[in-house]
Amino acid sequence: MIKTDILIIGAGPTGLFAVFEAGLLKLKCHLIDALPQAGGQCSEIYPKKPIYDIPGFPEVLAGDLVDNLMEQIKSFQPGFTLGERAETIKKLDDGTFVVTTNKGTEHNAPIVAIAGGLGSFEPRKPLLDNLSKFEDNGIAYMIKDPEVYRDKKVVIAGGGDSALDWSIFLSDVASQVTLVHRRNEFRGALDSVEKVQELKNQGKINLITPAEIIALNGDDKLESVLIRKISDAKEEVTLEVDNFIPLFGLSPKLGPIGDWGLDIEKNAIKVDTFDYQTNIPGIYAIGDVNTYPGKLKLILCGFHEATLMCQSAFQKIYPDKKYVMKYTTVGGVSGFDGTKKEAPKAVIKAIE
Amino acid sequence: MIKTDILIIGAGPTGLFAVFEAGLLKLKCHLIDALPQAGGQCSEIYPKKPIYDIPGFPEVLAGDLVDNLMEQIKSFQPGFTLGERAETIKKLDDGTFVVTTNKGTEHNAPIVAIAGGLGSFEPRKPLLDNLSKFEDNGIAYMIKDPEVYRDKKVVIAGGGDSALDWSIFLSDVASQVTLVHRRNEFRGALDSVEKVQELKNQGKINLITPAEIIALNGDDKLESVLIRKISDAKEEVTLEVDNFIPLFGLSPKLGPIGDWGLDIEKNAIKVDTFDYQTNIPGIYAIGDVNTYPGKLKLILCGFHEATLMCQSAFQKIYPDKKYVMKYTTVGGVSGFDGTKKEAPKAVIKAIE
Ligand SMILES: Cc1cc2nc3c(=O)[nH]c(=O)nc-3n(C[C@H](O)[C@H](O)[C@H](O)COP(=O)(O)OP(=O)(O)OC[C@H]3O[C@@H](n4cnc5c(N)ncnc54)[C@H](O)[C@@H]3O)c2cc1C
Ligand SMILES: Cc1cc2nc3c(=O)[nH]c(=O)nc-3n(C[C@H](O)[C@H](O)[C@H](O)COP(=O)(O)OP(=O)(O)OC[C@H]3O[C@@H](n4cnc5c(N)ncnc54)[C@H](O)[C@@H]3O)c2cc1C
Repeated sequence: MIKTDILIIGAGPTGLFAVFEAGLLKLKCHLIDALPQAGGQCSEIYPKKPIYDIPGFPEVLAGDLVDNLMEQIKSFQPGFTLGERAETIKKLDDGTFVVTTNKGTEHNAPIVAIAGGLGSFEPRKPLLDNLSKFEDNGIAYMIKDPEVYRDKKVVIAGGGDSALDWSIFLSDVASQVTLVHRRNEFRGALDSVEKVQELKNQGKINLITPAEIIALNGDDKLESVLIRKISDAKEEVTLEVDNFIPLFGLSPKLGPIGDWGLDIEKNAIKVDTFDYQTNIPGIYAIGDVNTYPGKLKLILCGFHEATLMCQSAFQKIYPDKKYVMKYTTVGGVSGFDGTKKEAPKAVIKAIE
Repeated sequence: MIKTDILIIGAGPTGLFAVFEAGLLKLKCHLIDALPQAGGQCSEIYPKKPIYDIPGFPEVLAGDLVDNLMEQIKSFQPGFTLGERAETIKKLDDGTFVVTTNKGTEHNAPIVAIAGGLGSFEPRKPLLDNLSKFEDNGIAYMIKDPEVYRDKKVVIAGGGDSALDWSIFLSDVASQVTLVHRRNEFRGALDSVEKVQELKNQGKINLITPAEIIALNGDDKLESVLIRKISDAKEEVTLEVDNFIPLFGLSPKLGPIGDWGLDIEKNAIKVDTFDYQTNIPGIYAIGDVNTYPGKLKLILCGFHEATLMCQSAFQKIYPDKKYVMKYTTVGGVSGFDGTKKEAPKAVIKAIE
């Protein structure tokens, strides 16, 4: 059982920044995310695109914003349960909560902060008969650790940025990369499309278009896929592969959190703007996942909500302590790893 | 009469960021500040100190944050009335407001956003008989344009960062810089103290400590000051000067805004968290100057408040228009100066 002060569901920008504000209050955080990496929509949907409305950044790539946030919270040593979906919640007699994921990992904390954005990102899956048989056994919808594909024969399906970018990346790792897409046209960043063209010309990516995968074969594990060319001839080829990675996009689903007894309005969790608490005391909702009069689904709003939430969480955990807010410039930042950042102190010194 | 869409009182980080959010909604802003420069507390009190809790910046100097904000809002071409205090407000028959400064400058707008922080920064003045006679006529409490002191004989009084830093700066501009302080010890950044010591050793700063200025002389304009050494001997010297700059710090005062009929609680203006509007429709209060349950006087909170405020202001100005929020990443940022920033578009391109 993982124990922490604030259990954060969702490691998007809001959840990440909550770690920092909690850390200033000496509260520890653990984050659960269905995705294999931190950053939420910023990392998953548009890591290489610029955002213009983060205060103080005339322009920042979404992926860089996430990197900066990870750097900012580093010394508060957050824990992560990645690639798992928070599924159930239970309140114990001592008033704390236990949240269990779809893989059975249990987390215990007095405070739960739902920073689930538009929901848990779930992959769109191809409609193939024996798909589930090979899931985690040759088939994966997200790439957690590219080393899994070292010297393997891999087929990727899809026509967007993920399919392009992972084909490029794995062309250096796998022994063979085949990219299959229903059309000849790909939709993505110009340089990604051009890079795939180049790798295809060099024979490093095997491109089959327009085509689709229509069957999966194998006994214990995936051994081959059947590919049908989309053309009048409907030519079919069997390709021996170790891995099949369908990258048809992820779609967010509020999912199991919708059944936790929280007040929901238009797919979002209702909160009080005093502290962004839900109708269940001890459970907060911050960022895109919440709603209140005037709500805007913007990153900068999530930062504010996370900050006020942490103050309230502190009072719940330590009802008897009086917290006096100190500016970071004045008090510095004391990490849980023993580091301390602080402004150079003014000196009092005679001039002679 | 200066006309604008949103008249912002206070050019601290909150007021500055409001310009950006208003700009996204195609609303123009004009800012009034009692200080000669933008940036509020960040510029005036701690420009060279690091802030650690601006989201996405593991560390940023307060002055750099202000520079970044100025860069971010540049294309929305805000107007500035600097070095003047907003003094009175009047509602016209057409429902718009006229705000007049202590120097008589008039501003007209349908929306007023008070982003006044802890209040208008007012200088602490020395207690000297004919002080007011020489104000703006040899005596200044803030330096708006250092060129005013080119080849002049200047005496600065004070023992903190401002006195140190301006003595250093003006030692290159003025023909003579004398620094007078009640003690031998100065309080400031180590490198500033050391630099003054160095300039004193080189004869570029004339240091008189412990001492104070006890009288001002001159007919039309300041001609000399009388300096008394703080010692048993109480030696007095008359120093011919063109300018006297007492830098004893600025203290913020809510001031005239306190009499505008706004609901005030503990020196702050009460607002509704729906849109940060005050009890007077059309007048908003954002940033350190406002209060509501859960309020924290933090920069990141001011950013959020400014953003929600602008949405509400838009609806007030254009009650019939329906605004559909577009992410900056998706819609880009169209400046009033004709510039457009936008994310590189995805291409749809065949790979052959
Ligand atoms: C193309 C695009 C452009 C955008 N441009 C801008 C912009 O310019 N400015 C701006 O401010 N915003 C922009 N946004 C919106 C911005 O990305 C979101 O406001 C922000 O990501 C919300 O952060 P969050 O942390 O609240 O949620 P998210 O980033 O959505 O993160 C939530 C995380 O929670 C996880 N999660 C949810 N439920 C569970 C569960 N049960 N178990 C485990 N994990 C779970 C999800 O997998 C996800 O990773 C844009 C969004 C998109 C898609
Ligand atoms: C030493 C120090 C360290 C700090 N450290 C941090 C930190 O680490 N993190 C953090 O988030 N915050 C910190 N703060 C607080 C932060 O600076 C404030 O929250 C922030 O400046 C508030 O911004 P604002 O725009 O609301 O108001 P301000 O920055 O106060 O600006 C308000 C402006 O309005 C002007 N004004 C007011 N009334 C009038 C009037 N009638 N006419 C004309 N002008 C007027 C004032 O002159 C001023 O320039 C710190 C503050 C100090 C002093």
